Amino acid sequence: MMTVHDLETPCVLIDMSIMENNIRQMQARCNLLGKDFRAHIKTHKIPQIAWVQVLTGAVGIACQKVSEAEVFADAGFDNIQIPYNIVGERKLDRLLALAKQTRLTVSADDLAVVAGLASAAARHDTRLRVMVDLGTTMRRTGAALDQIVPTARAIVQASHLDFAGVLIYPSTADNREMLQAALSNLSDAGIAVESISGGGMGGARDAELMPEVTELRVGTYVFNDWNSVRAGYCAPDDCAMRVRATVVSRPDADRGFLDAGSKTLSSDTDGSGYGHIVEYPDARIVRLSEEHAHCDFSACQSRPQVGEIVHVIPMHTCVVSNLHDHLIGVRGQDVIIDWQVKARGCVV
Amino acid sequence: MMTVHDLETPCVLIDMSIMENNIRQMQARCNLLGKDFRAHIKTHKIPQIAWVQVLTGAVGIACQKVSEAEVFADAGFDNIQIPYNIVGERKLDRLLALAKQTRLTVSADDLAVVAGLASAAARHDTRLRVMVDLGTTMRRTGAALDQIVPTARAIVQASHLDFAGVLIYPSTADNREMLQAALSNLSDAGIAVESISGGGMGGARDAELMPEVTELRVGTYVFNDWNSVRAGYCAPDDCAMRVRATVVSRPDADRGFLDAGSKTLSSDTDGSGYGHIVEYPDARIVRLSEEHAHCDFSACQSRPQVGEIVHVIPMHTCVVSNLHDHLIGVRGQDVIIDWQVKARGCVV
Repeated sequence: MMTVHDLETPCVLIDMSIMENNIRQMQARCNLLGKDFRAHIKTHKIPQIAWVQVLTGAVGIACQKVSEAEVFADAGFDNIQIPYNIVGERKLDRLLALAKQTRLTVSADDLAVVAGLASAAARHDTRLRVMVDLGTTMRRTGAALDQIVPTARAIVQASHLDFAGVLIYPSTADNREMLQAALSNLSDAGIAVESISGGGMGGARDAELMPEVTELRVGTYVFNDWNSVRAGYCAPDDCAMRVRATVVSRPDADRGFLDAGSKTLSSDTDGSGYGHIVEYPDARIVRLSEEHAHCDFSACQSRPQVGEIVHVIPMHTCVVSNLHDHLIGVRGQDVIIDWQVKARGCVV
Repeated sequence: MMTVHDLETPCVLIDMSIMENNIRQMQARCNLLGKDFRAHIKTHKIPQIAWVQVLTGAVGIACQKVSEAEVFADAGFDNIQIPYNIVGERKLDRLLALAKQTRLTVSADDLAVVAGLASAAARHDTRLRVMVDLGTTMRRTGAALDQIVPTARAIVQASHLDFAGVLIYPSTADNREMLQAALSNLSDAGIAVESISGGGMGGARDAELMPEVTELRVGTYVFNDWNSVRAGYCAPDDCAMRVRATVVSRPDADRGFLDAGSKTLSSDTDGSGYGHIVEYPDARIVRLSEEHAHCDFSACQSRPQVGEIVHVIPMHTCVVSNLHDHLIGVRGQDVIIDWQVKARGCVV
C-alpha cells in the first residue's frame, strides 16, 4: 500500500477517521436538536465526501455558486440550496436549466433580485424555490428588517416562484432578536414560513439558543481548521486537513522556509499567522510568498533541518481545497484515496 | 465575434494591447541596458504568453516549481531556470529527468541542498547547472554572505554540477553592497561567475543602479496589478488584468457586494484593500469572503445598482491567475482568445 512517505510535497492530506467523526458528531447534534442538517460543500468541493454527509443524515447540500451546483447535480444530488443572489440573464438561464433537473432553492435580499428570478422562471416556465436572506450583525448580504416583508411578498406573488422561508448567516444568538422580529412581521403579513435556514460554525455552536432555526447549513466542520481552533469551535485533534510540506531553506538559526506558500495554504489569515505547524507548535508562519511559508522558529527549543517533513493545519480549510486539484485521504500513514476536487475553481 | 458582454461573471480579462506594450517596454529597457531578460511565468502560467515574451527577446523563462517547469518544457521551452532549493529524493528525480530534456538551472542556498543536487545528478549521470542564492534585505531564502564561497565551492567541486553564477531576489539597489562583497569573495576564491541573475519589479526599477546584474527575471510586469501601481512601478492604465464582476447585493446606501470573492481575487492584500474598482475609483473593497467582495461606496458620488458590471484591478495578479482555469484575452470589447492556465496549481 502507498504511504504518505511516497507523496511529494506539498500535498493536502485528509485524515479520514477525523473527518468521519466530525460528520457523525454534527449530524448527531442536529438529530438531538430536531434540526435538519444541510452540508455546505464549499469546504471540500468533492461529491464523494458529500455522499458520506448525506448518507449520515444530511437532508441535502448547499453550494455557493451555480457552477458548483451543476457539478453536484451531475453527480446525482437532488436537494441543492444556493444561498446567493443570482443576478444576470445568462446566469439565470443556467440556474433555471438546473432547476428543471433538481430540487433547487436560492435566496434573494432585494426586489431587483426577485424580479430577475421571477422573470427567468416565467421565461423558462419552471418553478423556483426562493428564500428571503435576512441581514445579520455580520453585515454581509441580506435585506434589512424593513425589507423582509416586501421581498417575501414579491416572491409569494411571482407566478413561478415559491416562497421557501428565511435564510440567515450566521445564525448566531446575537441575531435571534432580529430573526424573531422578521418572523413576526412575516406572520403579521400572512406569509407562512416553511423553513428557517441558519448556518456557519457559530450558528452550529449556538444551535440550542436558536430554536426558530429549522435547518443548519455548515461546511467547515467536516475538516475544521486553525480558525476553528482559535474560535474555540474544536480542538487541534479535530482538524482533518493537514498540508504536508518540506523544510527547504534554513538561512539562519531562527528562520526557516517550507515549500508551501500562498498557492498551497492561501493567504487567508486572521492576523495571527498562516497556519499551525503540528511538529513545531511554538513556531509561527509569519508570511507567505507564493511558494514559501516564512517561518519563525525562534520560540522553539528544537528546530528542523533542511529536508525535514512537517504538517501544517491551515487557517482556512475551504480556500485550501479550492487551490488543489486533489486531496489525499489517509488513515494513519496509509494513503487510502486520491479525491479529485471536482468543483474546484467554480466561481460563476 | 464574441464580446465581453457575452461572458458570465466573474471572469478574468487580459487587455492584450496593454500586455503586449508591457512586454515590449521591459524588453526594450533590458536591451538598452545590455542585460538579458528572463520571463518569470508565475504571473500567467500560460505557454502561449511566454512564447510572446521569448519571441520579443527574452533569453528564456523562470519557473518556481519543478511541475511548472515540466509544463513549459513539454510546450517546447529550452532554457528554464528554477530559482528554488529543490529538496527531497522524489522531487530531485523529477528534476533530473527534466534536466535530460532541457537546459535547466536551479539555485541553492545551503550545503545540504547542494549535496542533494550533487548526489541526484551523479545518480542520474546528468549535468545540472546550479546558481548560489544570495540572501537580501528582504530576508527570504538565500545564503548569508559568509556562506556564499563555501556553497559555490561545493557546487564547483561536485562531479555532475556546473556552477552557473549568483542569484538574488530582489535585485534592488539596497542589495548592491552585499552583492559586490559576494562577488569579490568569489573572485578572491578563484571562482568564476558566469551570470548574475536579479529579479522582481523593484529589481527592474533599479536596473541602472545594479550594473553587476547580467540578467533580470521579472513576472508581474506582463499584467501589472494594484500592488505595482501603489509601489509606483506603473500607472493604472498599464494594468492588463481586470476581473469582470457583477454587483449582486446593495443592502444599504453605502455597502455593496460583487460576485467576486477570495476564490476569484485571492485574499492577498497590503492592508489597503483587495483591489481597485475601475468604474468607482473612490470605492474600497474592505473585505473578501469566498464568493463576495464587500465594498464600501460611501466615498462615491454615484453608486452602482444591483446587476451593474464593474472591473477590478486585483492587488496581486500572479495569485489570481493561479485561481482560474482560463484567462480571456480581449481587445477593447472583443473577446480574442480563451487561454487555458496550463500551469495553474502546479505546487510540487
